[in-house]
Amino acid sequence: MDGQLILHEDARSGNCYKIRLTAAHLDVPLTRHNYDIMKGETRTPAFLERVNANGRIPVLQVGDRFLPESNAACFWLADGTHLIPHDRFARADMLRWMFWEQYNHEPNIATLRFWRLFLGEERLSDVQRAQLPAKQAAGEAALRLMDEHLARHVWLAGDAFSLADICLYAYTHVAEAGGFELRPYPNLVRWLGDVAALPGHVVMEPEPALAA
Amino acid sequence: MDGQLILHEDARSGNCYKIRLTAAHLDVPLTRHNYDIMKGETRTPAFLERVNANGRIPVLQVGDRFLPESNAACFWLADGTHLIPHDRFARADMLRWMFWEQYNHEPNIATLRFWRLFLGEERLSDVQRAQLPAKQAAGEAALRLMDEHLARHVWLAGDAFSLADICLYAYTHVAEAGGFELRPYPNLVRWLGDVAALPGHVVMEPEPALAA
Repeated sequence: MDGQLILHEDARSGNCYKIRLTAAHLDVPLTRHNYDIMKGETRTPAFLERVNANGRIPVLQVGDRFLPESNAACFWLADGTHLIPHDRFARADMLRWMFWEQYNHEPNIATLRFWRLFLGEERLSDVQRAQLPAKQAAGEAALRLMDEHLARHVWLAGDAFSLADICLYAYTHVAEAGGFELRPYPNLVRWLGDVAALPGHVVMEPEPALAA
Repeated sequence: MDGQLILHEDARSGNCYKIRLTAAHLDVPLTRHNYDIMKGETRTPAFLERVNANGRIPVLQVGDRFLPESNAACFWLADGTHLIPHDRFARADMLRWMFWEQYNHEPNIATLRFWRLFLGEERLSDVQRAQLPAKQAAGEAALRLMDEHLARHVWLAGDAFSLADICLYAYTHVAEAGGFELRPYPNLVRWLGDVAALPGHVVMEPEPALAA
């Protein structure tokens, strides 16, 4: 590894958990540096200048270089390991699920979890509130698409556990906190159990608002 | 290559153009199969069953296998070539820009282009119309972030032209059709010119609504 690895994160974020879960499966130590996104700690001039001009966590710091975007950080950690398929098509298909996660899954399922669990529905703006039905429907479509795929496949990409499973596990396993039922998706529930049962698995932080 | 390559596309889509541009740089022939997304041709039962359960183009067909998600299809085409950096950090940093494109750039710049150029503002729903100011601001923030990066770097990732440049060129170079001015971003304009001047470059299809 290129010097110390520091994960700049908010421990409640599923995007940050993806990186911790990847590192745990690879037995790679990470130093964790926590920020409270609710207090704007990733929008300070120092953060924007030094860590990420995009004002977002997670960022994986590799020595003196900074790598934003959760799925890219997972790829860096796993590059050359068993978490990325050797087969060319399966490798691209793994990335297919990871790009799909950022476009079709995260903006619906993670966003509704953030709005409902952390912001609180009563504090949503009118524009956010108007988007609730579309995001709920798109999130359910994403879960259904995964469920149908997992009816025919053990893992998302290729024939082995990969970064695609890690990156989609993160927000799927806490989707109920966003207002999504998982019971209608038995293949998804089977897959969530399979991921959690793997050696090397680590759990996400307890969620403050749920633990209270 | 694994048999014939078929690109299932709508030629007006920037996401489809990414794949054609990657293939052009690699001198790889693609058979093109066109669908009209405005007529719902990617939501038919046959398309959903055979090509992509997610109902979207582009999909790259490799023999009898189907690879959705534009950036994943570009990765499959370019895997092992000069369009993907050899250096591990630069390779992950290329993916960083590609994931960022799907989360921060495409949903704002490509979506407003689609709404304004193809749907027409007068046909937007109230929920869509309410999102215009936020998407405009987020799109401008994305262009500004690229411009600031390109003030200090010739290309987006590492020190050479890569898939990151191809995938971000696609919707950036037609951002004005989405209602975004490019003039305030001189480094971005310089980079657009550099991409277009490369040997192997191909242009996007003429845009029907603009050509009319």
